[in-house]
Amino acid sequence: VTFHSPATGLGVRAVLFDVFGTVVDWRSGIAAAVDSFADAHDLRLDPHAVADSWRGQYQPAMQRVRSGARPFVTLDVLHRENLDDALRAHGIDPAGFPAEELDLLSRAWHFLPPWPDSAAGIAAIRRGYIVGPLSNGNTSLLLDMAKAAGLDWDLILGSDLSRAYKPDPAAYRWPAAVLGLEPGEVMLAAAHDADLAAAREAGLATAFIARPFEHGPDAGGPSAPEGDWDLAGTSIMEIADQLT
Amino acid sequence: VTFHSPATGLGVRAVLFDVFGTVVDWRSGIAAAVDSFADAHDLRLDPHAVADSWRGQYQPAMQRVRSGARPFVTLDVLHRENLDDALRAHGIDPAGFPAEELDLLSRAWHFLPPWPDSAAGIAAIRRGYIVGPLSNGNTSLLLDMAKAAGLDWDLILGSDLSRAYKPDPAAYRWPAAVLGLEPGEVMLAAAHDADLAAAREAGLATAFIARPFEHGPDAGGPSAPEGDWDLAGTSIMEIADQLT
Repeated sequence: VTFHSPATGLGVRAVLFDVFGTVVDWRSGIAAAVDSFADAHDLRLDPHAVADSWRGQYQPAMQRVRSGARPFVTLDVLHRENLDDALRAHGIDPAGFPAEELDLLSRAWHFLPPWPDSAAGIAAIRRGYIVGPLSNGNTSLLLDMAKAAGLDWDLILGSDLSRAYKPDPAAYRWPAAVLGLEPGEVMLAAAHDADLAAAREAGLATAFIARPFEHGPDAGGPSAPEGDWDLAGTSIMEIADQLT
Repeated sequence: VTFHSPATGLGVRAVLFDVFGTVVDWRSGIAAAVDSFADAHDLRLDPHAVADSWRGQYQPAMQRVRSGARPFVTLDVLHRENLDDALRAHGIDPAGFPAEELDLLSRAWHFLPPWPDSAAGIAAIRRGYIVGPLSNGNTSLLLDMAKAAGLDWDLILGSDLSRAYKPDPAAYRWPAAVLGLEPGEVMLAAAHDADLAAAREAGLATAFIARPFEHGPDAGGPSAPEGDWDLAGTSIMEIADQLT
C-alpha cells in the first residue's frame, strides 16, 4: 500500500520547492503590477527598480521576526509594509493613495508568473513523489498562486502554519514532521545556495535549479551551484528526469 | 487577478469535503484490509463486523480529546488504539500479533477507496473553487489517500494542524481563517446531517451528498437530508453542476 517508487538512492519521498525565484519569476510579475499602478496614477518610475527595492526589504523584514524582535506576522503583512518602504525609496509617498489600491498592488505577490518549465516539471515529479512548496509565503498566497499558475501541488503548508521563516531550521523540519517523514526523506529544490545550505543543515536532501534570470536578463545570476547538492539542473524538468 | 467565478448566489469560494463516508467508502476498504489480515493469520471473523466495531470507536475516542480528558493526539493514534478494542470485541487478543502488522493494518485508513464519482466530481468543482478535505483525518493520512485515490485537492489541512476534531466549531472556522476567507465563503460538503449542522452553526455554507451505502448495501442509510442545506445531491458531480 504505497504509491511511489523513488528511483534514486536518496530515499526521498517528498520534493518541496522554494517558490520565489525557483518556481515563479517574482521580478517580472511585480514589475508588471508596479507598471500598471504607475500608469493608473501617472507616476514616472522604473518598475523593475521598484520591484528590486520591494524585494530588498524581504530578508530584513523576516529577520525582525526570526530574531524575535517582533511576533510572527504573515508574509502578506510584511509585503504590504515593505511596499510602503519601496515607494518611499523611489520618492513616492504611499499616504497619497487609497489603502485598497496599495493592498491590491501588494496582492501581486499572490499571482506571480511561473517559469516556463515549472508546471510541467512539478507535474512530472508528482507522479513519483509528494510535491509541495517550502516557501516563506503564507498558505493563502501560495494557494492563489497555484490556482493562477496551474501548479498542481499535493498540499500547501505555508509559513503561517509552521510560523517559521527560512532559514530557521524549524521551517525545514516542520513540514517533514507533518508528513510523517524523516528530514532526509524530504528534498528541498531551490535556486539559492543559502536556502539549500540551511536545508542540508536541517537534514534535508537538496536539489539546485539554476534560475540565472531571477534578477533580470542582465544581472548575471548563478547558472551553476556553489555547493555540491544532491541534484542540480537548469530546470525542474531536468530534476524530474534525475529523480525517475 | 482572481481565478474563480462562483455562479451561485452563495458567495462561496472554497468547497471543503468531509472524507470518511462522503468521499471514500471506509467500510469496504477497512473490511478488505481486515479480510487480508484474517486470511494471513487464519482467523475466522466477519470483516465487515470488525470494520463496524473499529469505526464504532471513532466518536468516543475523539470525544475524549474534544472534552479535554486527554491532550490532542492524531487520528492515526486513535485508529491504532481503536483497532485493539475492535479486535477484542471480536474475541481476538491483539497482543498475539506483531506490532508492525497491527500498525500496517491500521494504515488501511490512509488508503480507502473513493466512491465512483469522487475524483471526477472534485476535479469539476476545482475548476471554479478552492477544494480540499475538511476531515478529522491527519494531514499525512489525507495525503496518502489523495495520492492513492487520485483526489486532486488544492490543499490538505488535516486535523493535526487545526488540533480540533469536528464538530468542535474551531475545526470548521480554522480552515476558513487560513484561507483568508469568511466562514460563509466556505462550504462543507458532507453525507452526514450532524456534520452539516455543526458547520452551519459555525457559519459555513452547506451541501449534502447522499451516500446511502456508507454502512453497507442493506443498512438503509439516508438518501435524503434531514436539514434544509444550501445544496443537496446524490453525488459530488451533482453538487458540481449546481455550483456552476
